[in-house]
Amino acid sequence: MKKFTIGVDVGGTNIKLGIVDAAGNILSQSRLSTESFIANKQHLIEAIVSAIRELIQKNNLTKKDITGIGIGLPGLIDYKGGMVIFLPNIPGWKNVPLKRIIEKKTGIKTFIDNDVNVIALGEWNYGVGKGYENLVYMTLGTGVGGGLILNNKLYRGEGFAAGEIGHIPLNEKGPACNCGSWGCFERYVGNQTLLSNLKRIFKKDVRIPEAFELANRGDKKALAFWQQTATHIGNGLIGVVNLLNPRLIVIGGGVSNNYKFFHKTVEKIIKQRAMKVQAKMVKIIRAKLGDSAGILGAQVLVNNALRER
Amino acid sequence: MKKFTIGVDVGGTNIKLGIVDAAGNILSQSRLSTESFIANKQHLIEAIVSAIRELIQKNNLTKKDITGIGIGLPGLIDYKGGMVIFLPNIPGWKNVPLKRIIEKKTGIKTFIDNDVNVIALGEWNYGVGKGYENLVYMTLGTGVGGGLILNNKLYRGEGFAAGEIGHIPLNEKGPACNCGSWGCFERYVGNQTLLSNLKRIFKKDVRIPEAFELANRGDKKALAFWQQTATHIGNGLIGVVNLLNPRLIVIGGGVSNNYKFFHKTVEKIIKQRAMKVQAKMVKIIRAKLGDSAGILGAQVLVNNALRER
Repeated sequence: MKKFTIGVDVGGTNIKLGIVDAAGNILSQSRLSTESFIANKQHLIEAIVSAIRELIQKNNLTKKDITGIGIGLPGLIDYKGGMVIFLPNIPGWKNVPLKRIIEKKTGIKTFIDNDVNVIALGEWNYGVGKGYENLVYMTLGTGVGGGLILNNKLYRGEGFAAGEIGHIPLNEKGPACNCGSWGCFERYVGNQTLLSNLKRIFKKDVRIPEAFELANRGDKKALAFWQQTATHIGNGLIGVVNLLNPRLIVIGGGVSNNYKFFHKTVEKIIKQRAMKVQAKMVKIIRAKLGDSAGILGAQVLVNNALRER
Repeated sequence: MKKFTIGVDVGGTNIKLGIVDAAGNILSQSRLSTESFIANKQHLIEAIVSAIRELIQKNNLTKKDITGIGIGLPGLIDYKGGMVIFLPNIPGWKNVPLKRIIEKKTGIKTFIDNDVNVIALGEWNYGVGKGYENLVYMTLGTGVGGGLILNNKLYRGEGFAAGEIGHIPLNEKGPACNCGSWGCFERYVGNQTLLSNLKRIFKKDVRIPEAFELANRGDKKALAFWQQTATHIGNGLIGVVNLLNPRLIVIGGGVSNNYKFFHKTVEKIIKQRAMKVQAKMVKIIRAKLGDSAGILGAQVLVNNALRER
């Protein structure tokens, strides 16, 4: 009886793979360096397929035991058509029919989606979002992305591009953003901005873990820096909270590991600036699945897709 | 055979009622002055019930011919529980089980929802939004409200408070808003602000229709005023477009009747500031159902509710 899924989480640095049972246990995992294969799309696909085959063999399974393969990728993905439309950070990926390619090479049903959407599915089904009908997953890192679970379903938008929390404007006038606009949320709280703010404040390069370390030791400038960042995070969430009235906002990504330095400020701002009903109802919490979110989410992606057919 | 619905659109000034056939034709309409009954909740309810009975009789129908009554109200409505939680502009309405009350008095299944949600249902099924899977309805008036159709379904949010486009912040610092926050979209484009801006510009009271009339005649100050307003409208929609990636934004409300004075600026800003995929995909158009939207939307509310049971 088929009862396992393969999850593949393609990131700019690593590709994480895992085999998951029906209850959401990860039986076995493996990892590839994206960078080793980044120059050649074909090599990257072959490496993923080999890693999938190895995982199956290592667990004494055959492809008959696998319900499906779920793949999360960092970019714009046409989930319905199974097409990678564009990956901004991996060259050569434009309009790649990855679903069909992987299915042909493995003989296993495959579903692909944006990585943040997949992680949102993971947190919703196996993480802090379990049982919630309406939640927003937000990742804070180099980019600020989002995944929306609305009416008990992943909302992808008309062109699979929904969830771009990082490009909600915080101000009508503001610093230029990579997206071509200005004043975007990401321009205030994305890692690039945090690093340049840290450099300005400390007059030298300070990495983000160091800035947390300094705050941990009570450094006033570091504490003020995180509070300022938290203020922007709160301000950026007001629109989301008022527009979507979610029950939960789940914060993931590297910065979220030190959520303790900003949760109070974020909550204060939500209370001050969000509408009463929305503010009262929303809980803001840290993601809990960490590195496993993409692999577990891929199982949910596969299961939901097979159910929808 | 039951095949008609009654739609009731409760506004701060008028209550519009209509009887609608299965194809969405309004057979007959009536109107009550909200103000005549505003002081007494019980009288208002009785007036609505009388008007419903009259509509049925006038059309030579009996309650057996009516599938259901749909009511849109200007405030926070618990659609599932059939409860009016709060109406900000009609005193005395707090936690009123209106669905149950109307059902008891009429013997007809009744469903209630927020007025903007009901209008969004109307435009989606009978207006410019017909056939679209993902659309945002926005009303520009004294308030700036929204109704979200996502994944082919009205999205109400966790506490029935979703769609508050008017309270997406345009700036981190900005003018104080009635909602308790500051810098809200509504604070830049709501009628109150438009009127006070007009007064500042023209050094006298200028009503909104006059400001359109002046623009029509080519008055430079009026044209500049509308362009400035359009800039804020565009800026306010960027977050909605990037977050929800809708196919359509439908603009309704009084100001939308003169959409010609701002559509070019709004479209220019969407093109400049929204993300490429989202900007390319979204069409921004005027609502077309006008006064009938609430009555037609109430039919959709009833039909959808009966189908969901």
